[in-house]
Amino acid sequence: MKKVLLTGFEPFNHEPINPSWEVAKVVAEQSENVVAVQLPCAFDRALTELFANIEAIQPDVVICIGQAGGVANLQIERVAINLNDATIPDNAGQQPIDTAVVPNAPNAYFATLPCKAIVQALKTAGIPAALSLSAGSYVCNHTMFGLLDYLAKNAPNCRGGFIHIPFLLEQGVRHRNAPTMALDTLVQGIQIAIQTTLTKETDLHIADGAIY
Amino acid sequence: MKKVLLTGFEPFNHEPINPSWEVAKVVAEQSENVVAVQLPCAFDRALTELFANIEAIQPDVVICIGQAGGVANLQIERVAINLNDATIPDNAGQQPIDTAVVPNAPNAYFATLPCKAIVQALKTAGIPAALSLSAGSYVCNHTMFGLLDYLAKNAPNCRGGFIHIPFLLEQGVRHRNAPTMALDTLVQGIQIAIQTTLTKETDLHIADGAIY
Amino acid sequence: MKKVLLTGFEPFNHEPINPSWEVAKVVAEQSENVVAVQLPCAFDRALTELFANIEAIQPDVVICIGQAGGVANLQIERVAINLNDATIPDNAGQQPIDTAVVPNAPNAYFATLPCKAIVQALKTAGIPAALSLSAGSYVCNHTMFGLLDYLAKNAPNCRGGFIHIPFLLEQGVRHRNAPTMALDTLVQGIQIAIQTTLTKETDLHIADGAIY
Amino acid sequence: MKKVLLTGFEPFNHEPINPSWEVAKVVAEQSENVVAVQLPCAFDRALTELFANIEAIQPDVVICIGQAGGVANLQIERVAINLNDATIPDNAGQQPIDTAVVPNAPNAYFATLPCKAIVQALKTAGIPAALSLSAGSYVCNHTMFGLLDYLAKNAPNCRGGFIHIPFLLEQGVRHRNAPTMALDTLVQGIQIAIQTTLTKETDLHIADGAIY
Repeated sequence: MKKVLLTGFEPFNHEPINPSWEVAKVVAEQSENVVAVQLPCAFDRALTELFANIEAIQPDVVICIGQAGGVANLQIERVAINLNDATIPDNAGQQPIDTAVVPNAPNAYFATLPCKAIVQALKTAGIPAALSLSAGSYVCNHTMFGLLDYLAKNAPNCRGGFIHIPFLLEQGVRHRNAPTMALDTLVQGIQIAIQTTLTKETDLHIADGAIY
Repeated sequence: MKKVLLTGFEPFNHEPINPSWEVAKVVAEQSENVVAVQLPCAFDRALTELFANIEAIQPDVVICIGQAGGVANLQIERVAINLNDATIPDNAGQQPIDTAVVPNAPNAYFATLPCKAIVQALKTAGIPAALSLSAGSYVCNHTMFGLLDYLAKNAPNCRGGFIHIPFLLEQGVRHRNAPTMALDTLVQGIQIAIQTTLTKETDLHIADGAIY
Repeated sequence: MKKVLLTGFEPFNHEPINPSWEVAKVVAEQSENVVAVQLPCAFDRALTELFANIEAIQPDVVICIGQAGGVANLQIERVAINLNDATIPDNAGQQPIDTAVVPNAPNAYFATLPCKAIVQALKTAGIPAALSLSAGSYVCNHTMFGLLDYLAKNAPNCRGGFIHIPFLLEQGVRHRNAPTMALDTLVQGIQIAIQTTLTKETDLHIADGAIY
Repeated sequence: MKKVLLTGFEPFNHEPINPSWEVAKVVAEQSENVVAVQLPCAFDRALTELFANIEAIQPDVVICIGQAGGVANLQIERVAINLNDATIPDNAGQQPIDTAVVPNAPNAYFATLPCKAIVQALKTAGIPAALSLSAGSYVCNHTMFGLLDYLAKNAPNCRGGFIHIPFLLEQGVRHRNAPTMALDTLVQGIQIAIQTTLTKETDLHIADGAIY
């Protein structure tokens, strides 16, 4: 049975919870082949802990989840860039500006998940989803880039990527007019992303880009 | 036991379903004092059917629900205006422009539900909600104005109002980046709105307006 | 020659300027039949000063302008409601909650400007514009309602209404991703609104409402 | 005197004009060291014409401009990715899906303009601006990636980048609630971007990233 490492983050930016961890926890409880790990919302330390878990667990797939407060759907990230540019300090007080995630590494990596197949499977199940071409320049992009660089260099058969998710319902109460999703919808969505990855070796050949 | 008339609309504007009716149906199935009625998305006919049901059921509370594709939360409407101005034809092919909902009636009515108490109760339950000061100038506003005019003239002890709700999850799949809510969240939200109305005679005195 | 009273507000809500006054000032400088008056951003006092100026100037048309930070176009307000509900204190420290603008007055007034003709004339001139069905529940709506109530009771031949405008360019610099308009665009837009009002006795019969 | 090549695109996606070309034309008319070239909105052909002009003009700086209908400010693009994924056909009828802009090239390039200094100079001049971390996956990103790859390989002393701009005012008339900018604001903005590039060898060290 193939093993999946699923990560979520600790809360940040004044939120009491982080939906990514709430979701990862429940998915792992319900799936015997999924291990959930909480990562710190901190540059470098997030990667140190991620790499240690990959070495310990030896997963076939790694999916990292992060909160994107303000988006309305599951966003399957397609690109990670080799750039840290933090507009707020992380939970350890670090705020890197225009540094590389990994020095002397490529400028960007593409996710190795079947991103378009995941979007299509989510929509077929009635769950709004979209591709995204930017994971930002904060801890989420940092983690996604670090993951893809690590896998490329150390575990080329392990596939990896990142999914941004909306606020949970209860977070939306404090953010006027912010879109939200219920926990069980997000849990179902991540389960579909995992199943799609485990069953699709190659991605779909359909248009799903952005004009700008 | 107090009786509640809950209305939803048939689908319109190329949608296969209307979340307002999906929700009203389920709420009525789960509550013995709630009767659900589907109204046509049609000027005048919506009111004819609404009034006939009020006369037959003699409710203590009437809450009409409508779809507001693009909003992220339950919007408790506070104001209905005496104006029809339709940018698309209704389901019967009518498209009134700058006509009165009810000739010689007031320019506007305020909802007689405890609107602010409903918003607060929803938020306390972790369901995003907000007051709204405009229900538009299409069939929803038409229905809300007609309802409040009817109650003022014929059943002053019956309280009434209107709640706009987001797309359901499965509708969001076809509307890129549109906020959505799951059916069970909306059902719970409408149940809370009903319970709050039945238990609060007067509204809360808290600020919840709009700058513009 | 017909006389026009054009009002703008003093700055509020931490903004150093208010585009409504910047625009009103320039329009009056360029038009001999337009008088510009700055109103305080304060409940009641805004109306006291407005009414005094109407009595002194005896205008044929009164157009009040207000800032709607976040909108992208000129919004011609069609409805004012008899409700004050302030989410922030005004510049005099008052924060009325659920009070009437004018006790024992109608629930709402419709603007007596040719609103749809103004929108069409603006678009023909290449200036984005739209009708709006809610002016909020703060000082802008308060002023619009007070104006229309005053005119209905004291000067029924004088036409009046309210136009909300976006942030000026320089304000947008401090509001990430907020739409803006340049001062000269706004000046031209208000001049077109005045000219349209002075030349059109009746409004256009075209659909321009809102679904919700 | 340093030479600048400024490009705009022909209209696409049902628009009668493209603001990028309207702006580039005027900037070149007003600046003796700026040459404006219109590029076709077509994969590959845009690059063929761009490279021919770079060889003929031998510029010190190349700035390509493109329309981003829906954004409210000048967006200085920081990253171009080696991916074509077109959701609509280009003006030549091509619609590449998941192809490389340049086979065997890096996954991404970073702009070599002083992006943060440009944003700051624009804001100081009262013109809304922001950094962007994704130029999409259509002809704009294609052109930006092709430019940066060409310069890296053939003209390493020439700096290059891409700026996305909003709809012009007159385009906004047909797009309800879309943000716009006036032509002279955009012309001034691009002039500031050019001047900043010509006077700043290195970029500012300030935070200006994105959380997600």
